Amino acid sequence: MEADMKNNLQYIFKPRSVAVIGASTRKGTIGREILHNLIVNEFNGKVFPVNPKATVIHSIKCYSTILDVPDAVDLAIIVVPRDSVPDVAEQCGQKGVRGLVVISAGFREVGVEGLKVENRLVDICRKYGMRMIGPNCFGVVNTDPEYSLNCTFGKTRALQGRVGFISQSGGLGEAIMNHASILGLGFSIVASIGNKADISANDILEYLKDDPSTDIILLYLENFGNPRHFTKIAREISRFKPIVAVKAGRTRQGAAAGSSHTGALAELDVGVDALFDQCGVLRVSSVEELFDVGAALSMQPIPKGNRVAIISNAGGPALLATDALVSLGMDVAPFSSAMKTKLKKALSGQGTVNNPLDLVAGAGGKHFETALNIVKNDPNIDSIVTVFVPPVTINQMDVANSILNGVKGSKKTVLACFMGVGEGSAAVNYLKQNGIPVYLFPEAIAKTLSLIDSHRKWLDRPLPKIKTFKVDYARVQKILDGVLTKKQDSIVGDTALSILDAYGIPVTRNRIARTDKEAVAAADEIGYPVALKVNTPQILHKTEFGAVVIDIRSAKETKSCFTELKKKVAKLPGKKEAFSVMVQEMVTGGIETVMGMSTDPSFGPLIMFGLGGIYVEILKDVAFRISPLTVHNVDEMIGGLKSYPLLTGYRGSEPADLATLKESLLRLSQLVSDFDDFAEIDINPFVARSKKGMSKAVDARIILRHDE
Amino acid sequence: MEADMKNNLQYIFKPRSVAVIGASTRKGTIGREILHNLIVNEFNGKVFPVNPKATVIHSIKCYSTILDVPDAVDLAIIVVPRDSVPDVAEQCGQKGVRGLVVISAGFREVGVEGLKVENRLVDICRKYGMRMIGPNCFGVVNTDPEYSLNCTFGKTRALQGRVGFISQSGGLGEAIMNHASILGLGFSIVASIGNKADISANDILEYLKDDPSTDIILLYLENFGNPRHFTKIAREISRFKPIVAVKAGRTRQGAAAGSSHTGALAELDVGVDALFDQCGVLRVSSVEELFDVGAALSMQPIPKGNRVAIISNAGGPALLATDALVSLGMDVAPFSSAMKTKLKKALSGQGTVNNPLDLVAGAGGKHFETALNIVKNDPNIDSIVTVFVPPVTINQMDVANSILNGVKGSKKTVLACFMGVGEGSAAVNYLKQNGIPVYLFPEAIAKTLSLIDSHRKWLDRPLPKIKTFKVDYARVQKILDGVLTKKQDSIVGDTALSILDAYGIPVTRNRIARTDKEAVAAADEIGYPVALKVNTPQILHKTEFGAVVIDIRSAKETKSCFTELKKKVAKLPGKKEAFSVMVQEMVTGGIETVMGMSTDPSFGPLIMFGLGGIYVEILKDVAFRISPLTVHNVDEMIGGLKSYPLLTGYRGSEPADLATLKESLLRLSQLVSDFDDFAEIDINPFVARSKKGMSKAVDARIILRHDE
Repeated sequence: MEADMKNNLQYIFKPRSVAVIGASTRKGTIGREILHNLIVNEFNGKVFPVNPKATVIHSIKCYSTILDVPDAVDLAIIVVPRDSVPDVAEQCGQKGVRGLVVISAGFREVGVEGLKVENRLVDICRKYGMRMIGPNCFGVVNTDPEYSLNCTFGKTRALQGRVGFISQSGGLGEAIMNHASILGLGFSIVASIGNKADISANDILEYLKDDPSTDIILLYLENFGNPRHFTKIAREISRFKPIVAVKAGRTRQGAAAGSSHTGALAELDVGVDALFDQCGVLRVSSVEELFDVGAALSMQPIPKGNRVAIISNAGGPALLATDALVSLGMDVAPFSSAMKTKLKKALSGQGTVNNPLDLVAGAGGKHFETALNIVKNDPNIDSIVTVFVPPVTINQMDVANSILNGVKGSKKTVLACFMGVGEGSAAVNYLKQNGIPVYLFPEAIAKTLSLIDSHRKWLDRPLPKIKTFKVDYARVQKILDGVLTKKQDSIVGDTALSILDAYGIPVTRNRIARTDKEAVAAADEIGYPVALKVNTPQILHKTEFGAVVIDIRSAKETKSCFTELKKKVAKLPGKKEAFSVMVQEMVTGGIETVMGMSTDPSFGPLIMFGLGGIYVEILKDVAFRISPLTVHNVDEMIGGLKSYPLLTGYRGSEPADLATLKESLLRLSQLVSDFDDFAEIDINPFVARSKKGMSKAVDARIILRHDE
Repeated sequence: MEADMKNNLQYIFKPRSVAVIGASTRKGTIGREILHNLIVNEFNGKVFPVNPKATVIHSIKCYSTILDVPDAVDLAIIVVPRDSVPDVAEQCGQKGVRGLVVISAGFREVGVEGLKVENRLVDICRKYGMRMIGPNCFGVVNTDPEYSLNCTFGKTRALQGRVGFISQSGGLGEAIMNHASILGLGFSIVASIGNKADISANDILEYLKDDPSTDIILLYLENFGNPRHFTKIAREISRFKPIVAVKAGRTRQGAAAGSSHTGALAELDVGVDALFDQCGVLRVSSVEELFDVGAALSMQPIPKGNRVAIISNAGGPALLATDALVSLGMDVAPFSSAMKTKLKKALSGQGTVNNPLDLVAGAGGKHFETALNIVKNDPNIDSIVTVFVPPVTINQMDVANSILNGVKGSKKTVLACFMGVGEGSAAVNYLKQNGIPVYLFPEAIAKTLSLIDSHRKWLDRPLPKIKTFKVDYARVQKILDGVLTKKQDSIVGDTALSILDAYGIPVTRNRIARTDKEAVAAADEIGYPVALKVNTPQILHKTEFGAVVIDIRSAKETKSCFTELKKKVAKLPGKKEAFSVMVQEMVTGGIETVMGMSTDPSFGPLIMFGLGGIYVEILKDVAFRISPLTVHNVDEMIGGLKSYPLLTGYRGSEPADLATLKESLLRLSQLVSDFDDFAEIDINPFVARSKKGMSKAVDARIILRHDE
């Protein structure tokens, strides 16, 4: 069955015979447009319209039901009203159809009623081993001439190309295909996955991974079905086929709209960013960027570095390009003096020679070619951006030709801007057909180049390496068994630190004391000064309650503090636990950091790191990654903080022992991977000191998960 | 002459007769295209081609020189080679021409040689009182049918409209006019100002201020000629005509390109931001945004607030719009329950009703009209964004019509998105012609709406109020006279604090002591603890040198510290000044802030404020404004810091006396307005305490200007 399921997925894109159930003669209806698209795109197989009320549609014999079709049918496109869909699907199953594309809407997306019908539909698919795209989708396209399948209802004919596109929004389908054809972007596969009742984005990713016609994958997503599975597949694919994604529902208000729209649970955006980063998916922020980046990746190599040369026939636009590139982290570095000499010689009459290279006014094609011929061999340059502002006196086609001649044989990334040139420019189309992506404005080039350059950086990263440490698993299990039996919500104080300690995260020395005598003995053993902390889960926010006394310097002080704390706690309302305190080693100096873990409803445990106090609370200068953390993740989390210089010693202050910080984060990650009982962990503060062995977790608070 | 000059500027845009000197019959040449454009745009006056080698051009009699033209000539367009320009201009002067548009290039922009010719040209203009645009420009356009002037060499005919456009880049001219015509954006005036040898952007701003045909002004700038004048004019105009600007040379690398390009001094970007903010100019970051915002402002009112309703026929794009709007600070708040009821009733069959409003699948024109009719009356909404994804089954023109019907009579700002619809869509053009700006993607709408909303916020600001305090001007003058006589580079220590004190900025109590006895007497008077600081301009970085001793608690300590410091300084190389120390009141507690002033080469004094230490040095969390500061500026500078919460009391710590901080910044601004001898002032730290009268400048360092 498993093998069947996978095999049948192939028939969605590679059918030899297609039935359109709900085909119609009436122009402007979906049932007519789909049939029309199949025929005018010359689907390379048999098409069978199905409609009980017609005998012929679009010159093709029509059948009452699919059961009446004399031949085998691989794929059925269903466009009948919602309530008829299950019956029709049942017939498809009986007929031995392998795949369904359900265009009909009115399912999960309209509420409970629709969800019921959708569930019935899924059951029918499962019963017969059929795979289904949709419902509530725009259809699919496979431009491979071997199939030439277009069962969408859009007006635009997809160009053939090497980009696979997966869209969760049916509504966007038409808009996107139209925009892509304007841009000259060709597709291998287009799949609108709608409600994802059976086939998910992950399934199609798996398909595209092995699809030899697809080099690049574009995604439009609104939510993740199975983010862990997504991560696994995407991480694998990204190494050899770039994945570019727009994820809607980025902001809280957007996310709210998302959940009322698709009924799907919206993820925290920090989780999405971390997820994409960890599996190498290039996140873009708009559909426009999706296609700008898609065009660049499908036509040009990924740059080898961030050094860009700009060649332009107008100073202003060259400036705009420089501004935009530099502000996005690209380097428009001066040319070497050798390059300058070469350029000056070749471009005789040229006043100044620099990067950006502003060709003399009235520079025509020849100048571009000359400059490109030199710059393409500059080893200090990774990408070339040409910015052409078309003056009336220069033939645009000449310029296009010269750009093509000039970059011939270049291994650098080349992007062109024909500023303000509208759709349908012959020169622009000519460049695109010859593999040079063209943009209307230099800012779009800058954004695109910096995005594909960030993919290079991802590819350059070492392969993810997850370190595993020897830890005391049994001790944590025992503690958890204990607290879970007691139905505790949280673990604090000594017990929390003990869990960390079991996983090798350094913690302060501490002892629990139930009597003043025990307290004094503990303090004597730990050595003064010490801190006393009330040790009960009831009092989470200790400092506010005054349940912590620090800097206790003698046995006498220890005793009196113990007594005072005990009195205070006795006055608290609610059920009483046996009173105890934690006598704790005082950590002075160093830098307060915060480590933590929270659970994303879709992505599972996220690990957090930041500096304490104002840095985390006001400046929100923290980093999140999805667990399990790789060594590289941890380097990035720490090194990427704005306040990172504080950890390396600021104004002569003590630098932090970074190795211990990093290892502690990895150990925390291992802890939350080993146990799924934690909802949240706060290690606050984890005091980072300079000397090896001196950095320690001072306090921790663990909230346990409540699964029903 | 002054009046003449102003009067003659009018002739640039409103000539009754135009000569084209350098007119040509050869297609593709600038001299031909300009003449052609004048004629095909039906210039409402006489056109005289001038070219010694032709007798007729473009069916019009041609003259050898302008002196041969029998009629009076108001405006001459000059397209002859550079070296002939001065002679031709001379003849224009003799002929009594009022204005010149010099298209010819090769002047200042190519170096010293060109600059010389440019200077000669300017001299000739001055001699005859002629006004000149250019050289090295694209020409000018005035679409007013009374003139119908187009003396550019572009291929695009400008649409008539109410937008005035000033471009410093000639190269951009054609690109911009082409892009604008694709967008359906109409111009009143287009002026490419080129090298600004005579007429500057400021001059044209003044002209557009009073031009009844212009409602909105768009600027493309590479540098400022006279930023103070710009500020004055722009601030005045912005109140009733929005100004939108792209300023190239934003980044350091961009700025470097700028200065090699135009030979103009590039400004620090922080200065440009402050300048634009202070005079209400909407800064956009690309030419694309310039026109997106220009279209919105020319067709729609400025929103009354940031609350946006989104109405869409597709969930995904509605989500994208919400994401983009919310991330830019707009509010896509839920509809009130009353609104929801109304909408639900009107849109029978609609599943959920919310903001964003996702109309049922297959929603056609009628649904948009119904929804708009209700939402346009919602008092909780300021702007409406419609997002339409064209399905094949719906007639786009119907939707366009329904949007127009739906918003009829609305006073809200309405922007439409027709997603992925290419140029030339009849429906899109129809909407634009009827005053609804249309965008291809929701992200562009979000950017545009948030930008014009920021202009509303600027308009809502109180009118700039500059407080003037009673200060001791004479004392500062006396100090400056003294140090300037001594040719000092800087003022530090006691003298620097004394200058601040004279302007009412609170400083610590301090005394200068030349002997140990004086030091002890001073310390006794100030009261312990005190600090001792070496008091000589030679040693600016006191702490590193160890020239400061703090927390001195007795007369004895004072004496020994004095002796020690004196010894240390004696060992320093270089010429010796008489040794003295500053005995200073110790300030403990409070929050360290930094106030300062630096001089922008174009904008003059910038005032800076931030928190001290890591906040200024690592997090760069500082605010700049151009002096003189208004009360509102100061509120924004302080309140806009990320670290602002620290000043209001964080975790129970001492809040700062904000009134004193603000007043001190205003007094600092007054100081640098009153004296132009300062290049830089650093007040670091200015310790902010909670109690009135306790916040004080502890140290200050003043660098003096060196004018040759």
